[in-house]
Order: sequence, then structure tokens, then C-alpha cells
Amino acid sequence: MFHFESDYLEGCCPQILEALQATNLEQTPGYGEDPHCATAADRIRYVFDCPDADVHFLVGGTQTNVTVISALLRPHQGVLCAASAHINVHETGAVEHSGHKALALPSSNGKISAEQVREALEAHQRDFSREHMVQPGMVYISFPTELGTIYSKQELADLHAVCQKWEIPLFIDGARLGYGLEASGCNVLPKDLPRLCDVFYIGGTKQGALFGEAVVFSDTRLSDDFRYFIKQNGGMLAKGRLLGIQFEELMNEGLYFKLARRADRLADRIREALRNKRIPFLVINTTNQVFPVLPTEAIARFAAEFGFEEWQIMDAEHTAIRFCTSWATPDSAVDELVAYIENKL
Amino acid sequence: MFHFESDYLEGCCPQILEALQATNLEQTPGYGEDPHCATAADRIRYVFDCPDADVHFLVGGTQTNVTVISALLRPHQGVLCAASAHINVHETGAVEHSGHKALALPSSNGKISAEQVREALEAHQRDFSREHMVQPGMVYISFPTELGTIYSKQELADLHAVCQKWEIPLFIDGARLGYGLEASGCNVLPKDLPRLCDVFYIGGTKQGALFGEAVVFSDTRLSDDFRYFIKQNGGMLAKGRLLGIQFEELMNEGLYFKLARRADRLADRIREALRNKRIPFLVINTTNQVFPVLPTEAIARFAAEFGFEEWQIMDAEHTAIRFCTSWATPDSAVDELVAYIENKL
Amino acid sequence: MFHFESDYLEGCCPQILEALQATNLEQTPGYGEDPHCATAADRIRYVFDCPDADVHFLVGGTQTNVTVISALLRPHQGVLCAASAHINVHETGAVEHSGHKALALPSSNGKISAEQVREALEAHQRDFSREHMVQPGMVYISFPTELGTIYSKQELADLHAVCQKWEIPLFIDGARLGYGLEASGCNVLPKDLPRLCDVFYIGGTKQGALFGEAVVFSDTRLSDDFRYFIKQNGGMLAKGRLLGIQFEELMNEGLYFKLARRADRLADRIREALRNKRIPFLVINTTNQVFPVLPTEAIARFAAEFGFEEWQIMDAEHTAIRFCTSWATPDSAVDELVAYIENKL
Amino acid sequence: MFHFESDYLEGCCPQILEALQATNLEQTPGYGEDPHCATAADRIRYVFDCPDADVHFLVGGTQTNVTVISALLRPHQGVLCAASAHINVHETGAVEHSGHKALALPSSNGKISAEQVREALEAHQRDFSREHMVQPGMVYISFPTELGTIYSKQELADLHAVCQKWEIPLFIDGARLGYGLEASGCNVLPKDLPRLCDVFYIGGTKQGALFGEAVVFSDTRLSDDFRYFIKQNGGMLAKGRLLGIQFEELMNEGLYFKLARRADRLADRIREALRNKRIPFLVINTTNQVFPVLPTEAIARFAAEFGFEEWQIMDAEHTAIRFCTSWATPDSAVDELVAYIENKL
Repeated sequence: MFHFESDYLEGCCPQILEALQATNLEQTPGYGEDPHCATAADRIRYVFDCPDADVHFLVGGTQTNVTVISALLRPHQGVLCAASAHINVHETGAVEHSGHKALALPSSNGKISAEQVREALEAHQRDFSREHMVQPGMVYISFPTELGTIYSKQELADLHAVCQKWEIPLFIDGARLGYGLEASGCNVLPKDLPRLCDVFYIGGTKQGALFGEAVVFSDTRLSDDFRYFIKQNGGMLAKGRLLGIQFEELMNEGLYFKLARRADRLADRIREALRNKRIPFLVINTTNQVFPVLPTEAIARFAAEFGFEEWQIMDAEHTAIRFCTSWATPDSAVDELVAYIENKL
Repeated sequence: MFHFESDYLEGCCPQILEALQATNLEQTPGYGEDPHCATAADRIRYVFDCPDADVHFLVGGTQTNVTVISALLRPHQGVLCAASAHINVHETGAVEHSGHKALALPSSNGKISAEQVREALEAHQRDFSREHMVQPGMVYISFPTELGTIYSKQELADLHAVCQKWEIPLFIDGARLGYGLEASGCNVLPKDLPRLCDVFYIGGTKQGALFGEAVVFSDTRLSDDFRYFIKQNGGMLAKGRLLGIQFEELMNEGLYFKLARRADRLADRIREALRNKRIPFLVINTTNQVFPVLPTEAIARFAAEFGFEEWQIMDAEHTAIRFCTSWATPDSAVDELVAYIENKL
Repeated sequence: MFHFESDYLEGCCPQILEALQATNLEQTPGYGEDPHCATAADRIRYVFDCPDADVHFLVGGTQTNVTVISALLRPHQGVLCAASAHINVHETGAVEHSGHKALALPSSNGKISAEQVREALEAHQRDFSREHMVQPGMVYISFPTELGTIYSKQELADLHAVCQKWEIPLFIDGARLGYGLEASGCNVLPKDLPRLCDVFYIGGTKQGALFGEAVVFSDTRLSDDFRYFIKQNGGMLAKGRLLGIQFEELMNEGLYFKLARRADRLADRIREALRNKRIPFLVINTTNQVFPVLPTEAIARFAAEFGFEEWQIMDAEHTAIRFCTSWATPDSAVDELVAYIENKL
Repeated sequence: MFHFESDYLEGCCPQILEALQATNLEQTPGYGEDPHCATAADRIRYVFDCPDADVHFLVGGTQTNVTVISALLRPHQGVLCAASAHINVHETGAVEHSGHKALALPSSNGKISAEQVREALEAHQRDFSREHMVQPGMVYISFPTELGTIYSKQELADLHAVCQKWEIPLFIDGARLGYGLEASGCNVLPKDLPRLCDVFYIGGTKQGALFGEAVVFSDTRLSDDFRYFIKQNGGMLAKGRLLGIQFEELMNEGLYFKLARRADRLADRIREALRNKRIPFLVINTTNQVFPVLPTEAIARFAAEFGFEEWQIMDAEHTAIRFCTSWATPDSAVDELVAYIENKL
């Protein structure tokens, strides 16, 4: 039985395993100060067209989020985000543990708007009791969002404009960045990203690496002393080159984007099959996550054939489930899934 | 030129790379809830003879220390440790960032004694102002220490007895645990360890793994909700099986100990060569780290032939340096180093 | 012009000033270990009929909340509360600064129900990703609430029952406790309170003292080492007797309750006058805060005669305002206000 | 029996009690935004000749220290201080609770030197592992120190010069500031202080107020958003005017300095009597604390006549004790103490 529960069920793409094998006995300095990290950072600066950006590598997403947020905020400040944001819901309060409030804005599709951010900032500013409240000090969005939706280039530009006007940074969590950039309908290019925010990260864990996230500071005033923060937050890998080696491969000849594109196209096939059966979706999206809403009674039978995640109980009779594709999903597994949808659902 | 600067200069032992290759396309649940982690934990419980222990896997040492300490202490409590302890010196204040004071005790060789701990606890208790002071809430030691020294079984038993009397836990940082257990003169066996402390960790990063540390709670009352803490502290690896796979291998047929033993014997050879030349040491030890004190003028010439770390300036004319051996050190590199010591130093 | 903006506009009730004068040259030990604190604690235990309770005195409300919450929660736990709770809105993120997430539940009148708490606890427990989420570790309510509403005895009993079933403490913020207990329609007696929660505090600042809040732990297992927490959170007043002296007076011959009762009755008069004019209220309550909703255009004229707080913009043409009465409100000021409402509003 | 245990055994100087009485029914806004705080701040700016300084009022010393330090440091930074510093020893780890390490420098008399600070900053800078260590981000000293010693103007100027060169702030804890400035041999004037550091506080609690500390930012770039920090750290008194009223009085016609001067002179008398009896001191100082070292066997008899604090066991037969004088110490009590020293010790 093939599993579609998540995009981190397998190891890593073969290129990375080969590179680990090939470099295994090299002797390099630790903590990210090795030639592989340097090359990987150069490739990222090239691919994302940000020659002056500061690039750092961390192990996981929660760690990356809390390290960046900890570096960007003063103690009395909080981070504006969607109520559904990973930092607000699924990081066991790591942001609060580091002392900051997640200032959640309502969202139905995982996104927040420039207008919401502007209103939150203005509301804080005009409140006579503002010193008794947490000051909004930055904005966090995920691209794609936790629901697989994406922002348009204009939406990002609008968000960034509000942030710049209020002089607070915009941070993009790109745990699944490639799946977003390669989604059909996405008009954001890699080279746009550094201009549309102040810091973002390129997710490796869910996109073909064993692990690893690359943080890119396009505003390098924000990364002052950032390596201290990485160490303090437990994200400084002793054998830091493992991160460098992986991103060297992912950023080599567009591998990162090829893997993501293929996964997105496989998800498109699943979406199309569902749509043809007039099955509704929790949310309309075009990335590697698919959220059909099914009659609850159909789920157990379905689950006997394919692995997927039960995402959300919608009502007494319907449940939203999630399928993820990834670099590791074979065409044949999608063939079988599509056939099941067409014939047995 | 061969490098002896640290024991994390290379990738990992071949068995682990092979296992990663062999399991790469397996589909497993994330976050450490996979069969490899289960097997690895079983093997650890077997090897360390603690059938009821609770075992968890994290990525790195600083992260492991701060996660354990965060789980064991209440906010008004601090952690007793040697002034030279890793948590007190080289973790960018991660323990303080999590809210706790490192209560440093003086130490010349990296070790602290049961007597020092007892005196600190009694001094706190009898102080009329104790409520204005940080309460000692646990004891942290490293085995071997940051200076490569080890505790005897009796010393550990004495430390544990004091802790038990005062009802505070004893935590052993085993970042280099194998090198300690296999050191000549060590009378502590793996099966002793769970009885000599309340929680310890088995270091992988510096002992042949790509990364990874296994925390063992012999006192399982202390590990309540520990997985929340791992997540909150950024240590819950999405592809948690990578940790399981590595410790499966390390705990298979004594690999962990064989690798450590070999490295210790290589270090013994370096030590002997230095001793024969009547070169003094910063500290007397028997593990994989060697700390000779050399005339400063001799160091540049030496460093042109071998990589090592300049550890500490002793006086105007002498400097302590550090050599580390590891699973990856070839015999031939030690042959050459010994020859240099014998003939050119 | 008389000001009704808040209940902390003046100094303190005359009895307290006299006591401060009378005791001024007494020499007493610091930090709350003086006879006045002991007597005040005894009086509180007597008045609230909790002979075994542990009583501590702190200076202010935010400090008290964060100190209690810090003592009750482990790092991975958060505090369930109303979205409008003081700790969630008006303490500049002090709770998050101490590492904990405020787990806000929706509320229209400042109250949360046992049912909401039960559902939140069950939802957490049944979530497969619960280790990735903040664990609800306690419940915070305010009595009366920030909107001046009160819980019935049954509502409190229901909340406490849920908490006891789930083995988490219930904490009542009583910044305005007296105004709640003396409100018309309140069926909670002082002696009920220790049985209806695990820890509560008796507000002094807003009820006739210069400052000061008395924390009462009816569950004394929760107050272990609490004095360390007071000190760590900056709440241990050097001249702690100032708190003892004030609560000695407030708890003497029912002064605390008499002052509150009088203020509530004055607020009742204002409410009645508004009701007679068919002016709607933001919320229906019976304590010392009154929240009429007025045509925005009427406010400036009103504000030229009386001080009040603009509380909330309701729509394009209406604004909710707040009047507070207190121990210091003269009858004549209420006479004038009522006359204005009757004749000029 | 008269008590000399501390300088906060009584209430407050009569002028303050009278002012509290006189202003009791005034209605003023809360949280320090009242006319009394404004006037008090003006008087402080005048007395300390710092017309552009930013002045804030908090309740207690620990709270003030942690609030200032929290505002000045980034998370990876620590505070350089004497090992005997109040923040390092007697604040229950409040600084660590806010996330920062106290970087303790050895000190025999409570003072640290510019040279020590310079060496610590340089050592950090030249360490290749500095990113693994806490970065020194500010310097904390107390004036007078916890041992009653004072810095000369030159020593302060030297400390400040080092701080300015390294671009880190110098913070002076002035819990007993007046006793220092009025000490015989002190060559620091009030108007010097703002030029010799970046932020300092003027202690009220131990110098005649009921409570209260006034923070003075001579470098106003450091006080940005400081009121948020006061609130977050529980230091924003609802009836903030109580702080304003007290400092209005203390800064009126030199009262603060007169009270301190008188206490210092009384301490001088005690010191002289001890010196005449050839009794040694724990530390040589000239402020309101006196630390004679007595034969332990003499202490119980002495303690039957006068209250003092047992400070430190020196050896098997000697103990250092502490006498404090204050605004409240009557001449007659010192007469009796001196007579006892002369005739019975």
C-alpha cells in the first residue's frame, strides 16, 4: 500500500545520497564553516538572484522559525500571522517559549492580506493602551501556506509594502517553497522572492533532502550575529556540511524545482480525478497537497487501499482528508490512486 | 595533511551510510514514531540493561542538553555543573535562554565531586536569603568531561547518592560516552550507567553517526510529556527515522563501542609518544582527546604537518593543544603523527 | 469635574493611610516576613474560611498573574482563558514573556464556560498531533470579568469540576473581587471561593488600597516554593509590611466588602438612570463598571462634564463608554451624573 | 532594642507620608502618566543636570534591574557584572529567567575595573568559538556596591570609556545611590552621573521612600518603547503617582541627599568606634553599611542588645556582621551602639 500521508515519509533523493557517499571521508571544519556550505550558499544567491544575501543553514522548520523570530523581535514585540500558521498551531508554543506572542489574524485559506496587517498595525498604534499590549514587530507568512495555497506576486508586494511602511520585517516560511513556486498559476519567480520579503527560508526536509532549511536574509541588517542565535537555539549542526552538501545538490541544475514540479503535477492529476467526480475540496489550491472532502463513511474503505491523513471533521457526515505527493511518489502510485478515485470512490 | 582538530570532521561510519541507502525508499511515519526508532530504543535498553527506560532521539548536543534541563527544572531552579561544563561555556547561553542559571562549581579537570554538590545544596538550604537565590534543582556532569577525563564508578555513585538524598536528578551528558566507557582505567560498564544517574544521553555525532543523540531516562518519572519538550525545543526531526536508523547500527553488535575503543587506543598511542618525549599535558586522561602543552614557538611548524586545535595559552611561552581521534582516524595518520612526535618535536 | 474613568484614580481609603501613619516607625523584617503580613493572612483565611490556605502578597495584578501562572505551568503548557482576558490582551505579553501561550477561547461577555474548557481539553487529548501543540495546563478566569460580569456559583462549580477531572488548576483573577462578591445577583460567598478554585487573588489596588494583591492558594500543593517565584518575578516588596498593613485594614470588620458594596450600589444608580432612558449597554452586569452605548455625537458634550473612558467603537454612529465607581466616589458625583443622564443625555 | 539589620526596616520619611495624605483624593490618570510623575522627573533632570534624559519610575530594585537589562540586550547577549552583584546572587535568577546570562567577573570588594571589562570583551572577540559563547552586551555595576564601596569618578570614567569604545551600555544600579554620593571621599557629584554611564537608577526604597526606583536614561536611544518593558515586567504601578509623589518629595530641596548624608555620618560614627577598638572590617567603605569582623563567640551577646545581620562566616572563630543606618536611625540608637562598642565589645 502506498502512503500519501505526508511529503516526508521517505529518505532523500538519490543525488543527495550519492553526494553524502562521495564526500564521506572528506575532513571539513564543523558548524557550517565548510566549503560545501559556502558553495550551497553561492548557488542559492545565484538561483534566487540575491548576490548580497546572507544565507544560513538549519536542521528543521520549527527551529528555523523560532531562531529567525527570536533574532528579529525585541521582547515586547509579537509576530503577526494567520491563525492557522504553523508557528501558532503546530510548534508546541516554541515562539512563546522564546518569549513572544503569536498575534493571530483570522484566515480561511491559510493566507493573510496586506489589509489585515495594515489594520492590525494601525489599531495598535491608535490604541491609548498600546503600551499594555504586545507590539506587532514582524509579519510571518508561509508560502505555500499550511493549506497548500499560494500568494500572488501582487499579494506579496502589497504585504511587503505595508511592512516597509511600518518598518517591520516580512518573513516567509518556505518549508514547501518549491511546491509553491512550481504550482500552476504561480506568478512568483525565485528571483522575485528576495525582493518581496526581508527574510525567507527554502525548505529541504519536505522537498527531497534528509533534512535542512536554508534561511536567506535579503535584508542583511537583520542577520547581524545570526550564528549566535542558531547556536543558542540548538540549530547549529556540528557536521554542518551535511546541510551544505544537500543544498549543493538541490540547487544544482534546478533539481529542487524539478522535484517540486513533478510532485505538483502528480497532485494536479489527483485533484483532477477528484474534480471529475465532483468531490468538493476543503480549499482550492495547486500545490502538492490535496484536501478533498469525503463522506465519512467512505473513508475506512479508502484507507484500506491508500495511506492519507484525516485532516478535519467537517460535519456529522463529511471529513476532509489530505494527500501529499513528493519527489518520492512514483507515477504508478498516482495511477492506482486515480483509478481508485475514478472507479471505486 | 591529516586533521585531528575534532572528532566530527568526517561524515559517518560506513554501516550507517549503507543503512541509509538500504532504507531510503521505505515509507515510515515521521517524528520518531517509526519502527527504526523503536528498534534502536530496544537495542539501547538491552545494551545498557535498562529494560524499563524511556529512550528519545534528538539531533544535537546543545539541543539535547537544553531540552532535558528545561524538562527537569522549575523556573526558580538552576543546574549545578562544573565551571568548564559545555552548558556553561559553549552553548551560547542556551540554558539561560530557557530561563535557568548554570550554577558553576570550580573544577580543574572538568569534574565535580559529590562533596562539592553536597556543600552547594547545604549552603543553599542554610542561607536565610535562599528565596532570593536560584535553587539548585539538578546536577549536570559530562562523561567523559570536556577535558576528556572520566569519573570512576565510585565517584558517580557518590554523586548520585547526594542527588538522591536531596531528591534532585543527576543528568550525564554523554556526547562522547563511548570514548569514556572504553577508556583504559574506566571501571564503569554500560549497564552501570542507568543505575548511576537519572537520565543520560548517548552521543552519536562525535562517535560515528552523521548526527544524533539518544536520551535515556532511567527514572521515567522525569520523562513525562518529554516529546512536547523535544518539539518545543526544535529537536523533533521530521524524518525521525534517520536517528533510529543510525542508532540501530551503532547499537548493533557493539559497533558503537568498537569504534570508540579503537579511537581511544589510537589516542593512547599519541599520548605515549608525547609522554616518552616528556611533554607535559594540560590534563591526564585516557579518552580520545589528548592535550599536550608545547612551547608556543614549536606550534607553527607542527601545524604545517598536522591539523590540531590550539586549546589554551598557558603562559608566555607555552600553549596547550588538542588532538582528537575518532572512528575515522586511519592508523597511518597516527603512525605519521607518532613519528613526527618522536623525531621532530 | 469628577472622573469615572477607572477605579484607581485616587490614593487609598483613610483607614489605610492612618495605619501607615501609625506604624511608620515600627521596625520589621522585610520581604513579607513581618507580623502585619502574618495578621493579614490570618484575617484572609478567616474571612474566606480557608484555615489551611497559603497566602502571599504581591504589588500589582500583571505581576501576580504572571507569577502564579509561572509557578503552575510546565514549559510546554499554556493557560486557557477568554479571548478578552487581561492576561491575553492587556499585559504586554507578560505570560508569553515567561514562556507560555495564552490559549484564548471566544467569549462575548468576558466569561468562559465549563463546556468550552472541557471541549478544549478533549480536543487536545484526541489530536494525533497533540505533542506539536501547546498542552492546556490550567484555566484562568477573572471574577468579575474585564467586562464587569460575574459567574454564578454553579458556573464556577462546573468549571472547577472540569479542571479537577482533568487534573489542572483553576485560577481566579480577583483584581476586582469585592465588586463581584457584592454585586446584586451574586450568589457566591467569600467562603465559597476557596472551594470553587485552586488559587485566587484578592485585588487591593482597585478596591481601596494604594496597591497590593493577596494570592490565596486553597490547594497548597501548588504554592511550593512560591516565594522564590515572587522574588524572581520582581514582586517581593522590600518593605513587604506595606502589603500586610493594607490587607490588615481591608480585612478588618468587613471594610473590603463595605467599600465594594457601596461602589456597586452607586454603579446600580448609574445603570438605572441609563436604563430609564432606554440607553443600551455593551454588556449586562451588576458590578462597579457600567458600559452604556451612546450615539458618538453625544460623547464630546458628555465628556465636557464628566470623565469616563471611551471603551469600544460599536459602529459608525455608536460608541461604548465606561464609568467606574469606587470606594472614593462621592454620592454627590453620582447625583450629578444621574441628573445629567436624566436631563441632558 | 534597636535594629540595624537593613535600611528598609521602617516606613518612610515624614515628608512623603504628608504628601500622600495631602494628595490622597486627587484624581489622576494611572500608570505614571500623572502630573506628579512629570514633576518628579523634571526635578530629577534638574538635580542630576540631564535636561534631555528619559526618566521612568518602577516599584522595586530586582524589577528595575531585569526590566532595564531586558530592554538593553538581545537574546544572545549577557551582562558583565561582579560575581557579588545583586543580579548575580540575590535576585533568584531574574536575569536568567528573562533569558540572559550574568557574566560574572571576580571581585573582592564588590567593584569591577575597566581593565577587567576590557579584557572580557577582548577575550570574547578573539575567541574562535565566540559564536558558541554568550556575547557580552552591557556592563552592570552598583554604586555603592553590595559591600558599600564606591567607585571614584576616574574609575567610572574608565569603565564608561571602555563601554563606549565597544559600543555597549553601562548601567549603574543605584539602589543606595544617595549613600554613595554623600559618602566621605566620594568625588562623584549627582551631575556627573549621567555623563559617566548610559542609564542608572536612583533608589528610593532604601533611602526614605516606601518603595520606588527612578530609572534615568541619559542615552535616550536606549529607552525606546521602555514603557512596554515596564508593563511586561510587572513594574507599571496602576497608581503610578505614588512613585511620582515620593520622588517629588525626595528631590525637593535636596531631601534625598540630606537623608543619605545623615545616615552616612551615623555609619561613620559606628565605623570610628569599631576602628578605635581595632576591630577589623570585611571591607573598607564609607557608606551606610558597616561590616566589622568579630569573634563569633561575641556575637550572641551583642545580638541581645542590638539587631544586625550575620553576613559571612570568615573562619572557625570569626564572623562578619552588618550594620545599616538609614534616614530612620535615631542619633540615640547610634549613641547606644557606640557606647556598647566602646565599653562592652
